[in-house]
Amino acid sequence: MSEYKKESKNTVKRAANRGHYDKKTVHKILDAACVCHLGFVVDGKPFVIPTIYARDENKIYVHGSTKSRMLINMEKGIPVCLTVTHIDGLVLARSAFHHSMNYRSVMVFGNAKPVAEEEKNHALFMISENIIKDRWDEVRVPTEKELKITSILSIEIESASAKIREGDPSDDKADYELDIWAGVIPLKPTAGKAIPDTKLKEGIEVSDSVKKYK
Amino acid sequence: MSEYKKESKNTVKRAANRGHYDKKTVHKILDAACVCHLGFVVDGKPFVIPTIYARDENKIYVHGSTKSRMLINMEKGIPVCLTVTHIDGLVLARSAFHHSMNYRSVMVFGNAKPVAEEEKNHALFMISENIIKDRWDEVRVPTEKELKITSILSIEIESASAKIREGDPSDDKADYELDIWAGVIPLKPTAGKAIPDTKLKEGIEVSDSVKKYK
Repeated sequence: MSEYKKESKNTVKRAANRGHYDKKTVHKILDAACVCHLGFVVDGKPFVIPTIYARDENKIYVHGSTKSRMLINMEKGIPVCLTVTHIDGLVLARSAFHHSMNYRSVMVFGNAKPVAEEEKNHALFMISENIIKDRWDEVRVPTEKELKITSILSIEIESASAKIREGDPSDDKADYELDIWAGVIPLKPTAGKAIPDTKLKEGIEVSDSVKKYK
Repeated sequence: MSEYKKESKNTVKRAANRGHYDKKTVHKILDAACVCHLGFVVDGKPFVIPTIYARDENKIYVHGSTKSRMLINMEKGIPVCLTVTHIDGLVLARSAFHHSMNYRSVMVFGNAKPVAEEEKNHALFMISENIIKDRWDEVRVPTEKELKITSILSIEIESASAKIREGDPSDDKADYELDIWAGVIPLKPTAGKAIPDTKLKEGIEVSDSVKKYK
């Protein structure tokens, strides 16, 4: 199936024309970020926590320590909403009312469950690769003890949707005659020059994964 | 009071030393972003929606259309968790286990309630200023009709906490001897050159708010 099924919770209601349900679009947006906002419910109240993640086929891995509230609550397997947002620009219209943002976002719905011991190393590898490709091969890999104290959750994507806005502002017809500048200020996350650890051993060059990182 | 009261839900549990509760720190992080992730509960299930916002003293305004599910559900006044995250860098340790992110995040807890008709214009002004300062003075202001079809929610901050990680990686003592490059790749959102609307009237120069935007 190349589309996520439209059901009540994943159907884009506001600006429905910006909604997308095909897996290709959803996955592309998920794979272009490494921090998501994970929502879950404790005692009827919402919690939203930023966390690193990676997608592996139709599954998402989320990393955290056993101490965190998020994981304590989710170990039992609880419903989550995982949202990823890229801010691509400020959309400056001629009217205050039509100001907007250009963005690509995805909402994923599913149940978060703890990952089995034997799957942890793979999950960490996937998360590491999603953050910075090939870094895993350069560093000391996790020990058994480290894996034991690391909790990872997996979320099978049950339903999902993407929402995308791009391009020019969309003003009321009459407003196009106004002498007001309108357009888009593009925004994107930018990586600066890598800063060596102050405790870095002398003579160690910046590694390939860091050089390649964009 | 210059601190948010520590109660169960806003107390940072994982890496508790990264937690901050003073209003100055919390507000600074909130004021440095314009998109938040707003979590709420519908039929016991979590929803997390990215949306624009502004802080006004101890209150947060959230903007949206009357059609959106978020607002329909919150008009009655429902508990929300509003989370704001700045990703400041990738923290590359010598071990996979100690990889991390540098970040500043805030979680706000409170009840979202609809803003009264007479407060809407002020709320929109605050949101506009938070996104791009002084743009409001350059554009056509909202008509009464536009205000009527705009829903804005306000969230009185009941409790909040900030979480900050900065600086070098923190490796296990023995790992500092490894011949592995470690350090930080700084990340920040960057504004590109403003792109004029393809329908922009001829001869209109880029406005001051856009020129000043960073």
